[in-house]
This record gives sequence, C-alpha cells and structure tokens, in this order.
Amino acid sequence: MIKPQTLKGFRDFLPQEARKRQFVINTLKKVFESYGFEPLETPSLEYEEILLGKYGDEGDKLMYRFVDNGKRKVALRYDQTVPLARVVAQYGSASSPQVLPMPFKRYQIQNVWRAENTQKGRYREFLQCDADIVGMSTSLADAEILSLVLEIYKNLKLDVTIKINDRTNFENLNKKIIAAIDKLEKVGESTVLSEMVEKGMTSDDAKLALTTLQEKPITENIKPILKYLKMMGQDVSKVKYEPTLARGLDYYTGIIFETVVKNSAGSICSGGRYDNLIGMFGNNQPAIGFGLGFDRTIELLEENGLLPDLKAPVKVLVTVFSENLIQKSLEIINFLDENKIPCELWLDPNSKMEKQLKYADQKGIPFVVIIGPDEAAKNMVTLKNMKTRSQKTIAEKNIFNEITI
Amino acid sequence: MIKPQTLKGFRDFLPQEARKRQFVINTLKKVFESYGFEPLETPSLEYEEILLGKYGDEGDKLMYRFVDNGKRKVALRYDQTVPLARVVAQYGSASSPQVLPMPFKRYQIQNVWRAENTQKGRYREFLQCDADIVGMSTSLADAEILSLVLEIYKNLKLDVTIKINDRTNFENLNKKIIAAIDKLEKVGESTVLSEMVEKGMTSDDAKLALTTLQEKPITENIKPILKYLKMMGQDVSKVKYEPTLARGLDYYTGIIFETVVKNSAGSICSGGRYDNLIGMFGNNQPAIGFGLGFDRTIELLEENGLLPDLKAPVKVLVTVFSENLIQKSLEIINFLDENKIPCELWLDPNSKMEKQLKYADQKGIPFVVIIGPDEAAKNMVTLKNMKTRSQKTIAEKNIFNEITI
Repeated sequence: MIKPQTLKGFRDFLPQEARKRQFVINTLKKVFESYGFEPLETPSLEYEEILLGKYGDEGDKLMYRFVDNGKRKVALRYDQTVPLARVVAQYGSASSPQVLPMPFKRYQIQNVWRAENTQKGRYREFLQCDADIVGMSTSLADAEILSLVLEIYKNLKLDVTIKINDRTNFENLNKKIIAAIDKLEKVGESTVLSEMVEKGMTSDDAKLALTTLQEKPITENIKPILKYLKMMGQDVSKVKYEPTLARGLDYYTGIIFETVVKNSAGSICSGGRYDNLIGMFGNNQPAIGFGLGFDRTIELLEENGLLPDLKAPVKVLVTVFSENLIQKSLEIINFLDENKIPCELWLDPNSKMEKQLKYADQKGIPFVVIIGPDEAAKNMVTLKNMKTRSQKTIAEKNIFNEITI
Repeated sequence: MIKPQTLKGFRDFLPQEARKRQFVINTLKKVFESYGFEPLETPSLEYEEILLGKYGDEGDKLMYRFVDNGKRKVALRYDQTVPLARVVAQYGSASSPQVLPMPFKRYQIQNVWRAENTQKGRYREFLQCDADIVGMSTSLADAEILSLVLEIYKNLKLDVTIKINDRTNFENLNKKIIAAIDKLEKVGESTVLSEMVEKGMTSDDAKLALTTLQEKPITENIKPILKYLKMMGQDVSKVKYEPTLARGLDYYTGIIFETVVKNSAGSICSGGRYDNLIGMFGNNQPAIGFGLGFDRTIELLEENGLLPDLKAPVKVLVTVFSENLIQKSLEIINFLDENKIPCELWLDPNSKMEKQLKYADQKGIPFVVIIGPDEAAKNMVTLKNMKTRSQKTIAEKNIFNEITI
C-alpha cells in the first residue's frame, strides 16, 4: 500500500488551520475592498517565457518548470507581480476586449510555488497576498499604500512599525555596496564596514559613505507622503524613516518599505514603488505595491494571542436516540433552523450517546440536544451544556433562550 | 518583447469575474458550514504515486505530471477525493498527531488541473467544490447530502432536480452494458439497444434487460432516504428516481445522483456513496459526497439572471481638485470612513475632473464628491449622482442622507 504523505514544503490545512487562514483572508479582503482595491486571479500555470528571467538566476532555479502534454514549456506562478504586468499588457490597452480601469488598484491572494530549501517558516507552496496601484505616480498613491498596510494590521490588532526609505538615497552607491549596507541591522556596523572594504572601498571611504547615509535627512519625496498619511488619520509615529534600508533595489524606483513587529525578526509586509517594471510585456505604467507575508502574519497573530476563537459556527448538536426517534430529532433541527441557530444532526441512530457527545466535544460544539423516549413523550428536550457538563430538560421552544444567554 | 498571453484552457479572472466567483464560493461556504461541514485544504502538488492509477488510464493521461528539482515524481491535484483519502489515512488514526473528528464532514474548494481537450466550458484549471461525509454509512447521511445539494441551489435561487438511483439496480449487468444504458437520455432507446447488442446481448435479452431496469421500483435503500429528506423539510418532488441512471459505477456502492436544470444538458452536481474507496491508503471508512460543477453553476446563474449586482462595494469617489485642496478631500474621506460609507480617494491632484468621473463610471461607483475652491470656501461639497448625472452642493454632514436614500 502507498504511504500517505505530503511532499516536503507542502501542507495540508485541516479544519482548524483552514479556519485561521480564512479569518485572515477575510480581514485582508475587507480592508482591500474598503480602499477600492479589486480582486484579480491569474492562472497557476503560465508559459515559461512569461515568468523566466524575471526573478534573476535564483528565481529561475527555484521555479517549478516542466513541459506539458502539448510540449509547451510551462511554469508554476512564482509571484504575482509578473502576472500583474502580463494582465496590464493584455487588457490594459483600449483595444483589448476587456478593459481595466486606470488606475488599476488590484489585490491578489493566490498560492505561489518556489522550490526553496525548506526551513522554519519556508514552504514550497504558500499563499501570497499582494496589493498594487498601477497607473499612478503620486505621493497620494504612496501614502494610500502605507495607509492600507497600517489599516490591515490595525484590523488584525497586530502592533507594527513600517520602516521606510527612498531609493534615491543610494544613487551614488553600487549594487554590492548597497547589499552590504542592507545587512546593517542584522549583522551590525563593523561587519558591514568590513564587507564594504571587501567590495573595494577604502576603510575611510566606507565609514564616510555609511555615516553620510545614516545622517541623510528625510527626502523631499518622503515628506509629502508622511504629510498625507497623517491627513488620512494614520498614526505617523508608526512609520520610521531608515536611510540604510535597501531591500532588493533592482527594480524599485521610489519609496521602499518593510513592516516589522517588535521583538520579531524580519519583515512581514514589504514593498515599494516600481515605475519601470509593469511595461515588461508592453503598456508601461508607474506602480506601487506590497506583498504581505501570510504565513508569518498568522504565526505572529497566534504568538500574540490575536486570533479569535475560530471553532465551527455550529452551536447545537442534535443527537439521535434511536431510529424511532429520528423524526423528533429532525423536528428540533427544523425548529433551530427556523430560528437561525446553527445546528448539526448526528447521522446514525445506532450510535451510543457517549460517541455522539464525544463528537460534539471534538468539534467544539457548545450545546447538545438529547431526545429520548421520556423527553419525546412529554414534548421536551434535554439540553446539555458541553462546557459545564450540566443539563436540564426543557420545552423545545425554550432552547432558544438557554443557548443565547 | 514576449507576447502577453495565457495558456489554452487557463483563465484570468478580472475583477468583475472574480467577484462573481467569490459570491458563489461564499454562498457555498455558508451552506456547508450551516450543515456542520468543515474546510479542508490539501497541497496542489502530491507525490505522483499518490494520484497515479486512481483515475483509470484516461486520468493518468490527463494528469499534469513532472519531475521536480529534487528528482521526485510529482503531479498536480487531479481531484479532491484521492487527497481526502490520503488525509483520512494520514490523520484519521488515533495515533496521528492531529486527529480528525469522525464522521469527518469536510468541504474542499480548490483548483484541480486536467490536460483536457479544451472545448466549450472545459478548462485545464478549474475550481472543484466537494463535500463528503466520511465515516457514516446510514440513510440519514445519504439524506443529509441530498438536502445539502438542494439547500445550496435554493440559496443560489437556481431551480434544480436531483436524479437518483441505487447501484444495486445494476447488480446483474456487466460494465459495458451499464455504460451503454447510461447514455439512454442522451441518445435514445434504439441506439442504446443496438449498443447492448454490440456488447454481446441478443436483441430480446437487451430489450428485456432495459425494460426490467426501467420498471424497477424504488429500492429499499432509497425509500428511507426520501422519507428523511422530507422530514428535513426538503421538497422531495425535486428528487426523481431514475433506475437507468448509471454514472461511473466503478467505485460507487450505494446511491448515485446527478443534479440537472430544466432545458440545460448535463449534470451540475453529482455524487454518490462509495464505501470502499477511502481505504486506498489505509483506514477505510464508508463515505458519501458530491462534486459541484463550479463553472457550469456560474454559467447557469448568469443565463438565468440570478447573479446579484456585484460591483465594487465603494459608494463614493472623492475627487481631488488641486494640490491645495487635498486636505479638504481627505477630510471628506475621513468623515465617510467614520460613518462607515465605503469610499475611495482619487490619487492624483493634477488629473482633470473628467478623468476622475470616467474612473467612477468604469468602476461603477454610484456617487462622486467634488470639492473645488468655491465649495471649500463655504465648507460645502458638490455631490454628483453618476446614474442620473444630477448634482447638488450640500453641507458635508448631509452626504450621508443623500446617498443612503
């Protein structure tokens, strides 16, 4: 017999986990929609040439690629930005049969696949949550994106800080030096300085460059963004200017940002402005957006006890005493349905009551209704509170009062 | 430049389409949850050996299979029943770290991939919506599954009929003959009879076998199911016994059913009891369930005008007249936010008003607020109704009354 197992880096989400994910997805959607962002879905598989070469050598190596039955070279979605660029090129022109509104404010919540080394918190299939504004190159658009990030985490009740920088701060530095500086918070100043020297700077030049960068005042680009963010009613003390923040600078052209949580390493929501990327398939448009780390966000919500009780919505399990009494149990189900009380019927008249109660416990159903011959004769039901284990025999119509108290 | 295009059989869902899908998914989830069904998600990729050989030669041929970077033979999810069987084997035993409740009533709404010939309504990536009860072999479970199907389409307002049969009706017939009979409704009696003769029966035997089948009364298995379905408050006239309904009988062991809509070919929701399948990876359990045709259901809802108006929830676009007046526009946004009126800010102070109004039209936003210098001086706003094209200048606080009327 074949061993039942999942691939490394791939996960099953049993009901309890699936509910947590659904809760966070619903919160994200609610906030996205409240800002006028609209949903987009793209295929899991694309022509390889659409995706290949867009993420650097590392990306090409980690991409799931294969040849399909029709001999087409295809690849699994690696991120949602390249598909967005394809969509903007494909439908964004006036001549396309379906036309996108401009600006195109879209959110996309779909899986991506990366053949990563699986380590703590790294998966090969994971949910990516992106929001981008395509077609606007204004401080207001930048401010709206930051406002959206703050609003999302306000809704999730997670206290975050957004670190922000302007890529023009790096204008006179080369890629390797920037990469060294980006590690500042992680490895400390002395390690960064040695790496800058390794990359060809003199010790004095490295020191000067780093100090100059650290002392750079807030740029003229960032100032109005913060002004508007404040006007939007957001707490700007949650946005911290950090002139050494670099991120993958390759395609960013304006502000860049990362979202961090106190005492927790790494960013949970990162992005920036990229005004020259969307045009890779034609129809270039300025753009700004972010990707939210879904798994990391859920982990932090759990660690901080911020996930609400996400049990099944069913409030009452109606047990079945015997075949003869099925009709009685179904009458109660219909009564509860009419009164909008979520309920579930036990489906086997031959099961012991003990088994039925255990099921209610396993699923976290708080109340159980029992109708045995005695109850049936008197047109009563026994209502058991699964938390207190107490039970009382009451008239059908009183169930409503008992369980809503 | 690479041509922006999708693979044949794969689809983009732009906002309007994505919203329709979301509406149907939300309805399904609501009904599933109200019956105590719980969500399950399984990986897109599985070990090939988990999926291979489970769907017959045709299935193996249509499966997306490849070798991953770690030289593992993997395949994309082809349906959700085999992954369910794997999950039941993997977590269903008392010794597994996570334990499933029994019965395990799960729903699963995820994409599956099949390298089908693409034709009208056939896609290579499509959403599969399944609900199954694992661990119960009772008439009550069968009735609950039928009740669930009726309830789903009641909620979607689509008038359906469920055709039902019992596989024991075919006990004395071989596979090839059954396959011929299954085409009865599609091709008519004379074609079926000739095919039965082709498959080795004499003309008289074929006629007798078909007539005997057509005249078979409702089985003892189906009777209690219909009785309970009625007790559950469902309209049993929507369930039609059809003794020649066969379906892929290979793994069904009890009732089988298909859901049809008047004047529309094919089934939109099919299933049955399969008591020997779940054990393919160990831990056998009786089971009954169905798969709902998501694309076909949406098509029928559209054809019958049953999809509600699914525009963006944003009610008001707050335009921006000039850089100086951004603050005024943001004050209105904050006011609308406080009053829970979904609103969106135009993000460019240099855009012509015409462009801003066009955007509201494109997105179906019903009201637009304009605050020019005149309005600002008087602490007023101009509210434009995008449907009637009429506008009036009113005090801020009166927006609320105007747009809720």
